[in-house]
Amino acid sequence: MARTHIDLELRWGDQDAYGHVNNVAYARFLEEARVRTFWLGSGRERTGMERHFRGDDPAGPKMLVANQQIEFLRVLEYGERPITIELWIGKLGGSSLEVHYEIVDGAAEERTVVARAISQIVIVDGVTMRPIRLSDEGRASVSEWMDEPVRMRRG
Amino acid sequence: MARTHIDLELRWGDQDAYGHVNNVAYARFLEEARVRTFWLGSGRERTGMERHFRGDDPAGPKMLVANQQIEFLRVLEYGERPITIELWIGKLGGSSLEVHYEIVDGAAEERTVVARAISQIVIVDGVTMRPIRLSDEGRASVSEWMDEPVRMRRG
Amino acid sequence: MARTHIDLELRWGDQDAYGHVNNVAYARFLEEARVRTFWLGSGRERTGMERHFRGDDPAGPKMLVANQQIEFLRVLEYGERPITIELWIGKLGGSSLEVHYEIVDGAAEERTVVARAISQIVIVDGVTMRPIRLSDEGRASVSEWMDEPVRMRRG
Amino acid sequence: MARTHIDLELRWGDQDAYGHVNNVAYARFLEEARVRTFWLGSGRERTGMERHFRGDDPAGPKMLVANQQIEFLRVLEYGERPITIELWIGKLGGSSLEVHYEIVDGAAEERTVVARAISQIVIVDGVTMRPIRLSDEGRASVSEWMDEPVRMRRG
Repeated sequence: MARTHIDLELRWGDQDAYGHVNNVAYARFLEEARVRTFWLGSGRERTGMERHFRGDDPAGPKMLVANQQIEFLRVLEYGERPITIELWIGKLGGSSLEVHYEIVDGAAEERTVVARAISQIVIVDGVTMRPIRLSDEGRASVSEWMDEPVRMRRG
Repeated sequence: MARTHIDLELRWGDQDAYGHVNNVAYARFLEEARVRTFWLGSGRERTGMERHFRGDDPAGPKMLVANQQIEFLRVLEYGERPITIELWIGKLGGSSLEVHYEIVDGAAEERTVVARAISQIVIVDGVTMRPIRLSDEGRASVSEWMDEPVRMRRG
Repeated sequence: MARTHIDLELRWGDQDAYGHVNNVAYARFLEEARVRTFWLGSGRERTGMERHFRGDDPAGPKMLVANQQIEFLRVLEYGERPITIELWIGKLGGSSLEVHYEIVDGAAEERTVVARAISQIVIVDGVTMRPIRLSDEGRASVSEWMDEPVRMRRG
Repeated sequence: MARTHIDLELRWGDQDAYGHVNNVAYARFLEEARVRTFWLGSGRERTGMERHFRGDDPAGPKMLVANQQIEFLRVLEYGERPITIELWIGKLGGSSLEVHYEIVDGAAEERTVVARAISQIVIVDGVTMRPIRLSDEGRASVSEWMDEPVRMRRG
């Protein structure tokens, strides 16, 4: 499957008063996974997508989150094992794309998905903040990381 | 409309490196709005719902977020004026309910919705963590705060 | 006493896995109290200090935290009553000042100090980031809010 | 030197509106470094201290932060290189100890200390929350990680 993998450390402070990793922290994990994939290019795989979303040009394309949905499947406990965010492109439009994710518990013996998520992203010009089309090269780069849309219980 | 209103202070630290209130902070606002409505009963209106979701009985019903979707409509700037979370019940099932929200910018001259959201909540027993039905009184209390489902652009 | 008072809402998310307001959140409270005092001028009292620390001029003086010490005296529980930050100037140098604080539990029957803190601040030029002297007017404004240094157990 | 090293990932969300890692995040890093050292034992070195501070016994000794001081020396920029917390025991009392730290910028070419800190810790019984003496074994274990007190500019 054309998914990239981002390993993220948990922090004790990600927990809430119930002693579980708080659902707000999941949104933080998704943000970090996007930053590492689209800006730093520091995930497990070299996707090359970071060359098209950030660079020396501050007027280059930026990503705005227009809509984000997270489905919480299991409780996640703090521990020293990193979680893994599996991230891929679920949909690619003219000036928008959908980032799909599965969050995998690093401490579980078998691959255990604790959450699924979708971020609807609008690509905008860094100066005018108006939607713009990705370059052909950017489009080709992103296309390599498309996969089947994540399936959530709720439509 | 049967909506309850929760006024929330922004914090300078809610901002991200772009100088806007970060999208992760929105999830924090929704959490706080739920806590004040369902546990503290400290919103603008006395809804009475807090009598049915928390009490002296630790085995009483608890609320688990199963799915949460946020639609981001406008940038929110930090300032001294509180935002207002308009919160209502968009759907009421046997052992689940949907909390719907609109986040209103307190600094805008006219009522300006900066985000819409839906949290799908499962009501569970505080000890077994198994889904349970709300009591008839709890159900009646919640029903008073039902309103039309929030409309998002994305399904 | 020449102290200004800033009332801050707690958030349920300020709690840690122990079910208490986490010590890291205290640093957030101090930051917010400084922002409201020195930039927004939105505390209980109109101190006027905000006219000298921020304005239309991005090259105006900025405040950098060089050192911060917090003494934790009592556990703070989340609730609907705001806490109050009592804030004053404990020391005023040429291009630096010390902000001193007491954090007061809003839910306690009597005035209960839960923490004391000192932030050592360097005043810098917004462009060069080099230390600069406050203007005479700024100095006079700040001087009105000087009070005895807070006393901590640890030197 | 008898210091243990804890490598911590930065998160994009650690930044504030100035685009720098926020000073509140530093307190979060110190917390995480303590948790990994004293509870998880997951730092670079196997210190063994975690055997004495947490275990199967919830009534075992707990650590309360009584006072924390952080000196900020340099701006820290977000990036993919982890920071390193160098942590040691600067002082060891009967039922208290001081954790001393230097935070080292992982992206700098040479060893660059961006902050220094001291946490004054009281060791308490997990049930009564009263100060207790460390066991002789715990004391011996901790003693191995003592080093010269960190030097701050401010007393």
